[in-house]
Amino acid sequence: MKRPDKNFSKECISAIGVDLGGTKINIAFVNKEGKIEEHIKIPTYAEQGKDLVISRIKKGILQLIFQRDKKIENIAGIGMGVPGPVNYKSGVIHFAPNLPGWKEVPLAEIIKQEFQMPIIIENDANVAAWGEKIFGAAQGINDMICLTLGTGIGGGLIFNGEIYHGRDNVAGEIGHIIVKKDGIPCNCGNYGCLEAYSSASGIKQRIYRRITEQSANDIDCSSLGNLDNLSLVKVFELARQGNVIVKDIVEEAIEYLGIGIASLVNILNPEMIVLVGGITNEGEKLLKPIREIVFRRAMISHTKNLKIVFGQLGEYAGVIGAAALVWNFY
Amino acid sequence: MKRPDKNFSKECISAIGVDLGGTKINIAFVNKEGKIEEHIKIPTYAEQGKDLVISRIKKGILQLIFQRDKKIENIAGIGMGVPGPVNYKSGVIHFAPNLPGWKEVPLAEIIKQEFQMPIIIENDANVAAWGEKIFGAAQGINDMICLTLGTGIGGGLIFNGEIYHGRDNVAGEIGHIIVKKDGIPCNCGNYGCLEAYSSASGIKQRIYRRITEQSANDIDCSSLGNLDNLSLVKVFELARQGNVIVKDIVEEAIEYLGIGIASLVNILNPEMIVLVGGITNEGEKLLKPIREIVFRRAMISHTKNLKIVFGQLGEYAGVIGAAALVWNFY
Repeated sequence: MKRPDKNFSKECISAIGVDLGGTKINIAFVNKEGKIEEHIKIPTYAEQGKDLVISRIKKGILQLIFQRDKKIENIAGIGMGVPGPVNYKSGVIHFAPNLPGWKEVPLAEIIKQEFQMPIIIENDANVAAWGEKIFGAAQGINDMICLTLGTGIGGGLIFNGEIYHGRDNVAGEIGHIIVKKDGIPCNCGNYGCLEAYSSASGIKQRIYRRITEQSANDIDCSSLGNLDNLSLVKVFELARQGNVIVKDIVEEAIEYLGIGIASLVNILNPEMIVLVGGITNEGEKLLKPIREIVFRRAMISHTKNLKIVFGQLGEYAGVIGAAALVWNFY
Repeated sequence: MKRPDKNFSKECISAIGVDLGGTKINIAFVNKEGKIEEHIKIPTYAEQGKDLVISRIKKGILQLIFQRDKKIENIAGIGMGVPGPVNYKSGVIHFAPNLPGWKEVPLAEIIKQEFQMPIIIENDANVAAWGEKIFGAAQGINDMICLTLGTGIGGGLIFNGEIYHGRDNVAGEIGHIIVKKDGIPCNCGNYGCLEAYSSASGIKQRIYRRITEQSANDIDCSSLGNLDNLSLVKVFELARQGNVIVKDIVEEAIEYLGIGIASLVNILNPEMIVLVGGITNEGEKLLKPIREIVFRRAMISHTKNLKIVFGQLGEYAGVIGAAALVWNFY
């Protein structure tokens, strides 16, 4: 497929956003207003290896194009968010922890051979930040930090209106701010990281550990129900009810998150902190104490113009942000 | 004085660097190789107020020019480092903690009225970073963090080859990374900040506090000598000798410094960390344990290309860095 360069009609063009995850691939047409025109979701089957995943991405894009009956002249390009560090200039994925066998994969080049149009690839946390800047909570903001609060804690940094990548394209590992010198172990191999205390997996691991200890002490853990089904929503709800097993773990998770953000604010003086991801379902009940901690502990000179908000793009943030990468070129 | 625009002979031109401090003002001619041609030092007398300090800066610059017998055509411009946040675009100093009465001072405009040539003003920590990038340890490095380790702990951030300022020109407050949730009070009003543990003043305050407690317990503090003359060099020396009063305070200072840098590395993925300021007199004895902590606690993906070094500009870093701001325009 080859798109005639820049000859497309500006009225009806869209960009394709691809959100490549460890378990599913979302692909969508997104228009210049950030609205989704057409959307498909396919399984990644990451365990089948790199080549089959790539072939599935290509087929998915083709399927989307035919499903929408979109003329190739009316596609501005393809933006892709991937779960690992990317050289955004060359479009090479350095590695991806949840995609076995992916190492230095020139994905942009591979996709471009099939679809001859601009292909832009970014790390998924950067995509989340960029999407919020172009179409979401951070429109018009040039210095902002987007925290992805989910199983882990990641981040995308926007400085002077551009995504900041760092020396090796791995900037933004906000989950690995060290918040406690002799803290608990983190999945990264270090200990005392923010992620070990304030991520969904960190909170759950601490609860499991405590239950094991409590059971040994014959203390009743039945309030938590079936542990395999224990959701973060339930955990936060129990904490608010004063449940002795989870209360201080949740409180500490929020306090460390506030401290981590306060440190970011003092170091980087952003205009906005945007929180996205699963934990943000808690809404104001989460946002209020975080704001309170940050505004109490960060420097006054740094908080006078600071805004701390939730992202606005919701469940389609991945594809909308990926498509937003393309619009940056027009 | 008016410099004929760009008509100067390129061979013999120099830039003027002004390093405005709370107690002294250093002014120097610095050539394009970063070498000092002529240097003067005058007292600030900050307590006499803003207008007299500014008049002293002007007279100092004039004195330097006449002392060197420099033709105005051969001066490329004036770069100034000041001890507070600056709007580098407008040349306005927002405030300066050690200069009473300085608030929103349009210093660049004031100096330009006297000397009609390019005037560039920056915060002194940014100047330190910029000097190291142009003439010192970080030549050719585009992503680096310069830590100023002295009475306090400050920082200058270079991202993509440019100084990063943040929303309100106060980015770089590395001393106020929170390293301990319920830590000791910091001068900023917060508690648990890196500066409270690892700055010269933080270390000394902790020692004084301990001595007060120890005296109450009748423990011999005579090894420390006269406390008013207690230097950081002496403190580090005593710690290495195993002195029970200072040993763990110094060890903790180094450990928290390492942790703070590891967090910076994980967040920002710099290529280089440059340490400047008084504490760096300790040399390898300080650098070795810091490197060890950072490389142990930061992520492997972030340390593979990381260098942690001391600055190279020494006691004239302030004027050399300030002059380097001017050379950026040519």
